[in-house]
Amino acid sequence: MSKAFKIGNIQIGGGQFALIAGPCTVESESQILEVARSVKQSGASLLRGGAFKGRTSPYDFQGLGEEGIKLLLKAKEATGMPVVSEIVSENHLSLFEDIDVIQVGARNMQNFELLKVLGKTDKVILLKRGMTNTLREFLMSAEYIISEGNNNVILCERGIRTFETYTRYTLDLSAVAALKEMTDLPVVVDPSHAAGKASLVPSMALAAAASGADGVMIEVHNDPVNALCDGAQALTPQVFDETAQKIMKIREAIS
Amino acid sequence: MSKAFKIGNIQIGGGQFALIAGPCTVESESQILEVARSVKQSGASLLRGGAFKGRTSPYDFQGLGEEGIKLLLKAKEATGMPVVSEIVSENHLSLFEDIDVIQVGARNMQNFELLKVLGKTDKVILLKRGMTNTLREFLMSAEYIISEGNNNVILCERGIRTFETYTRYTLDLSAVAALKEMTDLPVVVDPSHAAGKASLVPSMALAAAASGADGVMIEVHNDPVNALCDGAQALTPQVFDETAQKIMKIREAIS
Amino acid sequence: MSKAFKIGNIQIGGGQFALIAGPCTVESESQILEVARSVKQSGASLLRGGAFKGRTSPYDFQGLGEEGIKLLLKAKEATGMPVVSEIVSENHLSLFEDIDVIQVGARNMQNFELLKVLGKTDKVILLKRGMTNTLREFLMSAEYIISEGNNNVILCERGIRTFETYTRYTLDLSAVAALKEMTDLPVVVDPSHAAGKASLVPSMALAAAASGADGVMIEVHNDPVNALCDGAQALTPQVFDETAQKIMKIREAIS
Amino acid sequence: MSKAFKIGNIQIGGGQFALIAGPCTVESESQILEVARSVKQSGASLLRGGAFKGRTSPYDFQGLGEEGIKLLLKAKEATGMPVVSEIVSENHLSLFEDIDVIQVGARNMQNFELLKVLGKTDKVILLKRGMTNTLREFLMSAEYIISEGNNNVILCERGIRTFETYTRYTLDLSAVAALKEMTDLPVVVDPSHAAGKASLVPSMALAAAASGADGVMIEVHNDPVNALCDGAQALTPQVFDETAQKIMKIREAIS
Repeated sequence: MSKAFKIGNIQIGGGQFALIAGPCTVESESQILEVARSVKQSGASLLRGGAFKGRTSPYDFQGLGEEGIKLLLKAKEATGMPVVSEIVSENHLSLFEDIDVIQVGARNMQNFELLKVLGKTDKVILLKRGMTNTLREFLMSAEYIISEGNNNVILCERGIRTFETYTRYTLDLSAVAALKEMTDLPVVVDPSHAAGKASLVPSMALAAAASGADGVMIEVHNDPVNALCDGAQALTPQVFDETAQKIMKIREAIS
Repeated sequence: MSKAFKIGNIQIGGGQFALIAGPCTVESESQILEVARSVKQSGASLLRGGAFKGRTSPYDFQGLGEEGIKLLLKAKEATGMPVVSEIVSENHLSLFEDIDVIQVGARNMQNFELLKVLGKTDKVILLKRGMTNTLREFLMSAEYIISEGNNNVILCERGIRTFETYTRYTLDLSAVAALKEMTDLPVVVDPSHAAGKASLVPSMALAAAASGADGVMIEVHNDPVNALCDGAQALTPQVFDETAQKIMKIREAIS
Repeated sequence: MSKAFKIGNIQIGGGQFALIAGPCTVESESQILEVARSVKQSGASLLRGGAFKGRTSPYDFQGLGEEGIKLLLKAKEATGMPVVSEIVSENHLSLFEDIDVIQVGARNMQNFELLKVLGKTDKVILLKRGMTNTLREFLMSAEYIISEGNNNVILCERGIRTFETYTRYTLDLSAVAALKEMTDLPVVVDPSHAAGKASLVPSMALAAAASGADGVMIEVHNDPVNALCDGAQALTPQVFDETAQKIMKIREAIS
Repeated sequence: MSKAFKIGNIQIGGGQFALIAGPCTVESESQILEVARSVKQSGASLLRGGAFKGRTSPYDFQGLGEEGIKLLLKAKEATGMPVVSEIVSENHLSLFEDIDVIQVGARNMQNFELLKVLGKTDKVILLKRGMTNTLREFLMSAEYIISEGNNNVILCERGIRTFETYTRYTLDLSAVAALKEMTDLPVVVDPSHAAGKASLVPSMALAAAASGADGVMIEVHNDPVNALCDGAQALTPQVFDETAQKIMKIREAIS
């Protein structure tokens, strides 16, 4: 069993299964509130929402920034759910004071200066595996945080880069069992970024739950077609609800 | 739901879940009989056992050949289980007359001459995905069999090659949902070759079952430490039994 | 310096640089004769031409087969150039009696039964690296031929599969120096299949020559736009001629 | 021909070939001075030397930091060579005032916040390709710098991650011709990090020169065995000198 962290009134790891859900990006107050209420009702324990986005092209939508953080915190207040959001620069740290879990994206997994700064905080850090990084390198990056004094690290498998183009990345679900042989940090899985296609996400989320992961992080949008970012991979609230129910049944079946 | 094939008294696809199990290689009459009886008792529906092995090095054990086929057929007779075995040359076809399912290994997925010959038979063919092949190429190889008149093809995901070295290959479980969008052929998963480590196989087998695969193929050996081939990835009969029970519970949970 | 093989009146390896050129596929007598005469004039020492083609899809042009071999041999007679052609089935061996160098394609690098049969001949075998195979596996496949008694093996790097999609494969030119640390077999490079785009081939061919390879194999077509196979990667005779002249200058510069 | 930048008294791009050389890391005044004088004598036009190192493990030597920058500037003063050094945090920018070329390492290729800050300077930026990034993503990262107003970007191919383990990364030399079809920014090649083995570097450096690259960046150490970082891939001054002479001959041969 992995180690456990308390985050507000919920626990990550230690045998609890974390259902993290929310939109890729916070777009507006009504959007984040609507999604938050919906995923909470389906059983989600944490709300995710991006404010600062690292995008491949400088001409793509980069997130609402500070405004996005404020809207996410409104949703936290309205629903009581702890929130997860990604940081992209050490200089933004002060904005994340009330964010419960700080995410480090795959492209920053080896941004060692950022990791060292986060290691000096007492925040829970959700560290995503780089798309080309071995499990050993993944743990070494966690070590950059831990060696500065912060042990609150959650590892997140989100797909690695291979030659296959039908999916955006190849989700490496064997990483769950492998990481559990190497560390006692909790391991969660993000099937949404790996798939890049909403139609594949439920199958992959169920597989992740069966694999023994400590949680899944799933993108949900109330209007995927008009999402400003990654709409193609977002589940509708209804499909998320069906998926969440199946995940819970699987967890019972193997417990 | 995928299409269904009758194999002896069992069905593959069409909503049935196939539990295929057995040793990497047939080593002796007592070995194959003991494993066969054991996996049958745990609920396996097909018995696998290699007679002709394609090994990276010419100096590795290459299987018992024709003698291996005979021993596998003895186990079929003794247990009533249909059997699966790999073919490595079109010139061996006559030896496979009583074998129920002919396997084409990953290294031969694009041995098109072999595929064409198998397309002229009415055997069920279990086609493994090449370790570097895209899903589209996988389906094109199936098409080499189908276009010759044989529609009885089962697709088997068994891991693709990536930079990660903790596992032997990276099992691509998103291939299950992806292939089901592209074809109605049954899709099974081989976690054993992908992992290369027995300790990871149960987690990956449960994940495969949850993903919606039509079956799993798992290596089981009565004495893994002394196995002549791939012992490191073989489950003991007891671990296989526990895994099989959990697989069945997962299948119930999501049905 | 690598070991050397005599092929007709030319030598491969042992310090000689082999310029192998010709069309992907033999299409007609006039086509193969025209290309053969042209590449000979530009300094090519061996003529390549496919008769049996392993294609991803069963619905793609599969080559002229036996007729293609006959036309290639006519070009050999007319020009005096030794010829290279690919074999795809052990059962075709008798057709290759007058072919000087038998090529094993990347997809058959681990078709061990084919390799063993070729190991029982005294033909020079040009073995292509599988698109997903390590250098160690490449040498093990060569060993399948050598261990049967045939030492006449030329290794051919032709690109490995990676995530990059601008090129068809990623040419691994470091394989040249690496293989020369591991073996004394001659190493040639095929930039055409790796690139998949004619515009990139001259740069990659010059790089191969500078890397210390024992030769390059380049696709040349008299009418690339209307080629039946892989026209996009074929050089025109004129571009091949310019490339050949530069290759020779590079060889002089580093000798 | 690529665009050209003036750097001190030398030119990068525009038909000039840049020979960039120096140690992985600045270790001491005597070390950097000795290497600088040696590579200058062999024809190097720029001196490289790391002060801030991004290392996989937090327990590996991380460079001399600000002290390393000072020692590198001493070598610049002593030899008149412009210098290249890597930046790992936007907060270090003021230390790089007298550094001629600021390098962004492969792990930071998608550290977009860092790129934006560098885009607001007028420094020449040497941007390394991420080990898992496509050429299109590479250009998009360059665009993060350019779109902020700084057009002085040099692209550096340094190897991508593949399944091959004999080399540390797989140098993608086809990227040179490919990038030249996509952009007019200068393209240089770093064979040292790609190979990870000094024995392979000369072959790969010659290949890069022949491919049409605008330069190579090679690690040279006066005492590789005792280097604090990456000694296994560093050339001795003598081997560098021989390699440099061959590179110049190749450049003449193809000009």
